[in-house]
Amino acid sequence: MGGPVTGLAIIGSTGSIGRQTLDVVRSLPDRFRVVGLAAGDNVSLLEEQAREFRPRLAGAGRDPEYAYSRMVELGLNCQWATPEEMASHPDVDLVVIATVGKAGLSPTLSALRSGKAVAIANKEVLVMAGHIVTAEAKGHGGEIRPIDSEHSAIWQCLWGEPLDAVERVILTASGGPFRDSPLEELASVTAEEALRHPNWQMGQKITVDSATLLNKGLECIEARWLFDIPLERIEVLLHRESIVHSLVEFRDGSVKAQLGVPDMRLPIQAALTYPERLPGTTAPRLDLRRIGSLNFGAIDMKRYPCLGLALEAGGRAGTYPAVLSAADEVAVQHFLAGHIGFLDIHRVSESALAAHRGAANPSLDEVLEADAWARAWAEDWVKAKT
Amino acid sequence: MGGPVTGLAIIGSTGSIGRQTLDVVRSLPDRFRVVGLAAGDNVSLLEEQAREFRPRLAGAGRDPEYAYSRMVELGLNCQWATPEEMASHPDVDLVVIATVGKAGLSPTLSALRSGKAVAIANKEVLVMAGHIVTAEAKGHGGEIRPIDSEHSAIWQCLWGEPLDAVERVILTASGGPFRDSPLEELASVTAEEALRHPNWQMGQKITVDSATLLNKGLECIEARWLFDIPLERIEVLLHRESIVHSLVEFRDGSVKAQLGVPDMRLPIQAALTYPERLPGTTAPRLDLRRIGSLNFGAIDMKRYPCLGLALEAGGRAGTYPAVLSAADEVAVQHFLAGHIGFLDIHRVSESALAAHRGAANPSLDEVLEADAWARAWAEDWVKAKT
Repeated sequence: MGGPVTGLAIIGSTGSIGRQTLDVVRSLPDRFRVVGLAAGDNVSLLEEQAREFRPRLAGAGRDPEYAYSRMVELGLNCQWATPEEMASHPDVDLVVIATVGKAGLSPTLSALRSGKAVAIANKEVLVMAGHIVTAEAKGHGGEIRPIDSEHSAIWQCLWGEPLDAVERVILTASGGPFRDSPLEELASVTAEEALRHPNWQMGQKITVDSATLLNKGLECIEARWLFDIPLERIEVLLHRESIVHSLVEFRDGSVKAQLGVPDMRLPIQAALTYPERLPGTTAPRLDLRRIGSLNFGAIDMKRYPCLGLALEAGGRAGTYPAVLSAADEVAVQHFLAGHIGFLDIHRVSESALAAHRGAANPSLDEVLEADAWARAWAEDWVKAKT
Repeated sequence: MGGPVTGLAIIGSTGSIGRQTLDVVRSLPDRFRVVGLAAGDNVSLLEEQAREFRPRLAGAGRDPEYAYSRMVELGLNCQWATPEEMASHPDVDLVVIATVGKAGLSPTLSALRSGKAVAIANKEVLVMAGHIVTAEAKGHGGEIRPIDSEHSAIWQCLWGEPLDAVERVILTASGGPFRDSPLEELASVTAEEALRHPNWQMGQKITVDSATLLNKGLECIEARWLFDIPLERIEVLLHRESIVHSLVEFRDGSVKAQLGVPDMRLPIQAALTYPERLPGTTAPRLDLRRIGSLNFGAIDMKRYPCLGLALEAGGRAGTYPAVLSAADEVAVQHFLAGHIGFLDIHRVSESALAAHRGAANPSLDEVLEADAWARAWAEDWVKAKT
């Protein structure tokens, strides 16, 4: 294969995106060196990964002393490091932010302040603090590459395009498991039903967010920051098959789309190997002759009130997107635990947004305060209801 | 709008592509100066165009003395010039080859030898002499931009991509007016029926070639030269709606597609304004919500024997593609005149290819000889049959 070797730090290596990132590394062993692996609480998987990839740096969020002692016991000669230390380490060229929720925020900023390239799968990083993250990237010559399939599609469609050429960005949405359910049944759907995504295998929280389309709303806010385009020029298009991952309409009327089988290893690899494309050995090839038909339609905003809520929060900007994201996270946890109904997810978030008094252009501390406030508000809402 | 002004020579200004090129110029009047207009035999339209665009250079293929005297009579202060003179004139930056058949060959070579950018709509130029044309472009720093919607799509999908990234090029084909006709009825279809293309308004010859899919085969040969990719990695995909104009599969499994309403002004504008994209005022916007469904399928090679023939001629290379193109042109003329049946178009071309003794890496003269030989062969075939 040849070519330069990229030093990787993977923050969130034991989660779904982290594991698939290591799959990509396995298929291109000459091109990557795993310098750092940071896990959350899955220490046994971290051990396994460290045995295979022999990183110089390792870390775990929960019970780090125990985790470290296990590594020593196993004879793995790792230096123990926080995600922030890994993200700024001189041997690291590219930091993969594969965490969920606000955990990705601080290592992302650490990486960007060190001028590293950052591949972001964690949408809350940009939803909560897009204005801070993009300013840090600009200020230190850092680079943000998306991993989310939709944003990877838009990013790939923009390669080689003039900066002022974009008319609209069009995010596709499968519509989730309830796209065809009668509206009156939505109040009584179960967590199990909400977790049956028609096309993608993902974590629980994002799967429920894909059923409400809150996830798509957060993706619109993420796209706004990644591609420096106003929300008014970002559209959501219903596309049942999740084959067209997203599209860009240019101002001359030409439209470009990126397509592929629904397999996260494809956008992960694109982010890891950019600006090259290397042979992928893992995911099956797209065969449109076999797929036959790709279907598109308008989004029914009545079916997906969380999408409207997210676009509203994105429009108000400041701390509102952080409040929405945090309130939704609490609400989804309680929905998955059976404490509240599916439609309550929207009610919790709506109530938090309505009660919030936000700051414009907030500092990181103000964003984190708003996040904490919204979590408390949402917990109170659920307590009052149950 | 601002930006530099591009000096244009339009070779074939009164044909379908030439007229639509002038439409694009009309919508972006500050960005283009029409330096030269070369017509075939439609002198009255050339007069009209010269009155509107005031080119420094004009020319007509048929009856040039009469045409010139008309221009003088009308007080149009044009210098009379051949297509070759226009294509190499110092005031010209970009030459649009909007002719049909081998007429585009000599002005294309003239432009490339002068280091100009050439926007090619005339597929015979590359089908007949791709090896010569691409060598001239390389040798003199000239540039070839495609206008055909399929090739424009591939070209746009390749912007910003690494050169070694392409796995396959996938050309879409609508299947023409007979895609659903029972095979046994094809022998008796009329010229009128063959001219009813489901999606595109085009000239007669290319419309019949779209019914046999010979046109798609020539496009594969054209793509082979434009994108320097072996024929084996070029595929044809049935796509009824002509919305996805073509696709590129990269070696990492990612696929990019270019989409748009079927309107030739879009790819013409892309070729004229490259590397910029400017607001297009003329063509309607693509709305996938309204279109609803895009359909794809395999090509039935039994229905379209001319496609197999073209791929075979492309594989044999040398003078074979020129022979196929010339024999088909004669056959289509006789089909349109009612002298032979629809299925005879294939028989004429097949017989010419079988009889031809081709040269490898032929000179331009050898290509033109092969063209003349094939025309004579095809005329004889028709004469013997009728």
